[in-house]
Amino acid sequence: MKRAFAELRSRLAEIEDLARVNVLMRWDTETHMPPAGAGARAEQRATLVSVLHDRRTDPALGSLLERLRPFEEAHAPESFEASLIRVARRDHDKAVRVPTRLRGELARAASLGYEAWLRASEAEDYAIVLPHFQRNLELRHEYVACFAPAGDPYDVVLDDYEPGLTTAEVEAIFDRLKAPLLAMARAAAAAGPGDDDCLRGSFPRDAQRRVALAILSAWGMDDAAWRLDDTVHPFQASMAIADIRLSSHFDESNLHGVLWTLHEFGHGLYERQLDVAYARTPLAHGASCAFHESQSRLWENLVGRRLSTWRWCYPTLQAELPAQFADVSLETFHRALNRVHPSLTRGDADEVTYGLHVILRFELERELLAGRLDLRELPAAFDAKMREYLGLDPPSLALGVLQDVHWADMMFGYFPTYLLGNIVSVQLWERAEADIGDLDERFERGEFAPLADWLREHVHRFGRTLTPHELLRRITGAGIDADPYLAHLERKLAGQTGPPAAGGR
Amino acid sequence: MKRAFAELRSRLAEIEDLARVNVLMRWDTETHMPPAGAGARAEQRATLVSVLHDRRTDPALGSLLERLRPFEEAHAPESFEASLIRVARRDHDKAVRVPTRLRGELARAASLGYEAWLRASEAEDYAIVLPHFQRNLELRHEYVACFAPAGDPYDVVLDDYEPGLTTAEVEAIFDRLKAPLLAMARAAAAAGPGDDDCLRGSFPRDAQRRVALAILSAWGMDDAAWRLDDTVHPFQASMAIADIRLSSHFDESNLHGVLWTLHEFGHGLYERQLDVAYARTPLAHGASCAFHESQSRLWENLVGRRLSTWRWCYPTLQAELPAQFADVSLETFHRALNRVHPSLTRGDADEVTYGLHVILRFELERELLAGRLDLRELPAAFDAKMREYLGLDPPSLALGVLQDVHWADMMFGYFPTYLLGNIVSVQLWERAEADIGDLDERFERGEFAPLADWLREHVHRFGRTLTPHELLRRITGAGIDADPYLAHLERKLAGQTGPPAAGGR
Repeated sequence: MKRAFAELRSRLAEIEDLARVNVLMRWDTETHMPPAGAGARAEQRATLVSVLHDRRTDPALGSLLERLRPFEEAHAPESFEASLIRVARRDHDKAVRVPTRLRGELARAASLGYEAWLRASEAEDYAIVLPHFQRNLELRHEYVACFAPAGDPYDVVLDDYEPGLTTAEVEAIFDRLKAPLLAMARAAAAAGPGDDDCLRGSFPRDAQRRVALAILSAWGMDDAAWRLDDTVHPFQASMAIADIRLSSHFDESNLHGVLWTLHEFGHGLYERQLDVAYARTPLAHGASCAFHESQSRLWENLVGRRLSTWRWCYPTLQAELPAQFADVSLETFHRALNRVHPSLTRGDADEVTYGLHVILRFELERELLAGRLDLRELPAAFDAKMREYLGLDPPSLALGVLQDVHWADMMFGYFPTYLLGNIVSVQLWERAEADIGDLDERFERGEFAPLADWLREHVHRFGRTLTPHELLRRITGAGIDADPYLAHLERKLAGQTGPPAAGGR
Repeated sequence: MKRAFAELRSRLAEIEDLARVNVLMRWDTETHMPPAGAGARAEQRATLVSVLHDRRTDPALGSLLERLRPFEEAHAPESFEASLIRVARRDHDKAVRVPTRLRGELARAASLGYEAWLRASEAEDYAIVLPHFQRNLELRHEYVACFAPAGDPYDVVLDDYEPGLTTAEVEAIFDRLKAPLLAMARAAAAAGPGDDDCLRGSFPRDAQRRVALAILSAWGMDDAAWRLDDTVHPFQASMAIADIRLSSHFDESNLHGVLWTLHEFGHGLYERQLDVAYARTPLAHGASCAFHESQSRLWENLVGRRLSTWRWCYPTLQAELPAQFADVSLETFHRALNRVHPSLTRGDADEVTYGLHVILRFELERELLAGRLDLRELPAAFDAKMREYLGLDPPSLALGVLQDVHWADMMFGYFPTYLLGNIVSVQLWERAEADIGDLDERFERGEFAPLADWLREHVHRFGRTLTPHELLRRITGAGIDADPYLAHLERKLAGQTGPPAAGGR
């Protein structure tokens, strides 16, 4: 049995290696690849993904997993051995449903879709990306059909990102949120735009990058195991527990890129703090995408927009951008950073209205997948919902339906995890604060290790050994609960959370 | 038969895709990877190379190639079909000699060796890299044994870079060169160091990079299909015919990085100008490493050190580095750039003494592979030959045995191709000039397309359809001939080649 387990480990190590190579290809495609390389890259990714899929679906792996059932049962469910076998079986069972040809096609279409999205965004021409959206949706339908779902087809795509969560559960959570969010958005719009003048202007990219890196360096990033690159649509990719790649996008006209970088750090820290014993196994990933987003949103919003954090790092920003900030008080800057007002793009939405951007996309995705919305009508449907939920009319495709890469990139079903991540981030934050004590006092001194350590201990190190549901229950004693999040937003809207007095919330 | 050929193409396309993925991994390892990622990367490369090797050695591929013999014979030897089958058979026949396990080990050891070499160079500590050199040599011996060579074991490693060429042939060529090179080196040393003061000082990296890119842009590089990154040991890597990656190293104290960049461009142009019909086939590579080096050395030296070229681009250098060059005449700069004087490092050696650096390494490699030289004695043996051939005593490991990455990187057998490339570059140059007419007149006007076009037409587009021997014979009517090269060097030493009068050589 020990030999069978060793064979399993060796097979899984190779699968994991190839999966990381695929991550490298995505990272390169979106950060460094010359545009003319896109066609060849699409073929290369399709080939690699096919090889990977063949390994994942190898019948010999299936029988090995069967043979290991007694071995699994002889170990505690949370042991490395039982966890590895359980997770490997889940992956294998899902993989065998999908023919290798389709896996390759999905990869090829995602690469080509990404490249078309870049061109369409630049040319402001939906016609460029439409055939790719159509192809992607067609392939996603084929994919869904492999699982012959009894209920909602959306369940299938959701499960890839949020294992075990159903569309109905997401819907219930989003239903709980939608009315209060709409009311808050309306109230924010009615209250007027507020003052964030200090965040508009001209901010040299290099200075923004230095500010972001100065903050991240205090948060735990180092040159030995991390790097930061430029991209169009920010993302995090890890090649290994000790090889974390953040990518961001710095626009000279605003400071969004700094916050995006803090966001991606949250993803990176999760991967960086996994138990090293899980290296080269399928356990070396976050529990789910919502858990991953909980980490990115926690560092971006709950830490990155916090007054105590900026008490510590605002002098750095002022030193890097003296012409812009020497005469701006910390309080003015912090208020601007936390201003609540409906905006056109999800990526730089304030915390309060952010959820509506996600709900809008979730609703559109469901319509698309159910065949009730034609992709040709998507831009109009997107704009209509923007008007309805946020009272805004996208003036361009880049500020409308093409602002996100996900549908070009084949990531149908991912969007909900952003909002679920927000919800979970507040649940985790409350728990962390209860455990650690006053975080603001520490942040003001530039001490972020206690929070990072808490997250490693309670969230990160487990990897995929626990399901997202088990992990959340273990930490908070509850399931996904939108109430703390809503309360947080209410306080934010009321201007109470944003700038807490030292020592208070 | 057509179906069998289609199946062959499909198999070869997947093999080629995976091979390019491996190139991407190398590129990333040497340009962007955070150092702590090295361990995981070594495993990932080993896994990928094993997968690739399994495909290359698949018995089904072997029988397909057998079945296609009549099909091959029904096509002209230079046809796409016959060439593809012939080259694929050669690759398959070589691959099946090597067990997959050993292939994986070689890849793993090369990655780990590279990383150790970086650390050893920085720490100036041979002990760090010695066990890796030892492991590499051991694995290379295992590799050689797979081919059970009748003659020199060096034949086996050489054949991977220079198909069809034997060690004895290389030896004969180098023997022809060695005495004249030693005499020239001695003459150069005796003539005194010359004046290259203008090339020493402080040259900001960004300015150097802009100069290099300005030149390369006129030579045919564009942003759509090329990029330039930083690395420690410059190299070129192509992910596809339309995805060419140059990497270089700019040191603020000299301008070597500019010339290295021009060198790598020569490699890149070869890959960029391959016949696009060969994409995703094993034909989409240069004919051999010597041919590749002939291209890099041609652009670096025969074009990049030429007076007519600098007549055109010296104003750019002066504009980018006014403090350094405003008061330096073109003639002074050009004389400095072509100064002949023994130097410690191969990478920035002058054209005349360059060959001795290669011969020295070739001789040491042969001793190592034959087991006549112990790796522990390598630094001393290296230094002794430096004294003997160039009259210099390396003051450090970084300027001595650790200046090149090849032995750490498993590239035993590569060095000779540098010198062979130099020889071939002069043979090609004479042919090109005879065909095109006066190149200097064109270069002065910034016109490099006629040369690039000639190279595409006569060298690049063929890829691997012709052996290096056939290709050289077709272009020059002769085999590798050291005489034109020696004559070129004699003129260089005499100060006659370097600064030709307009219209002259």
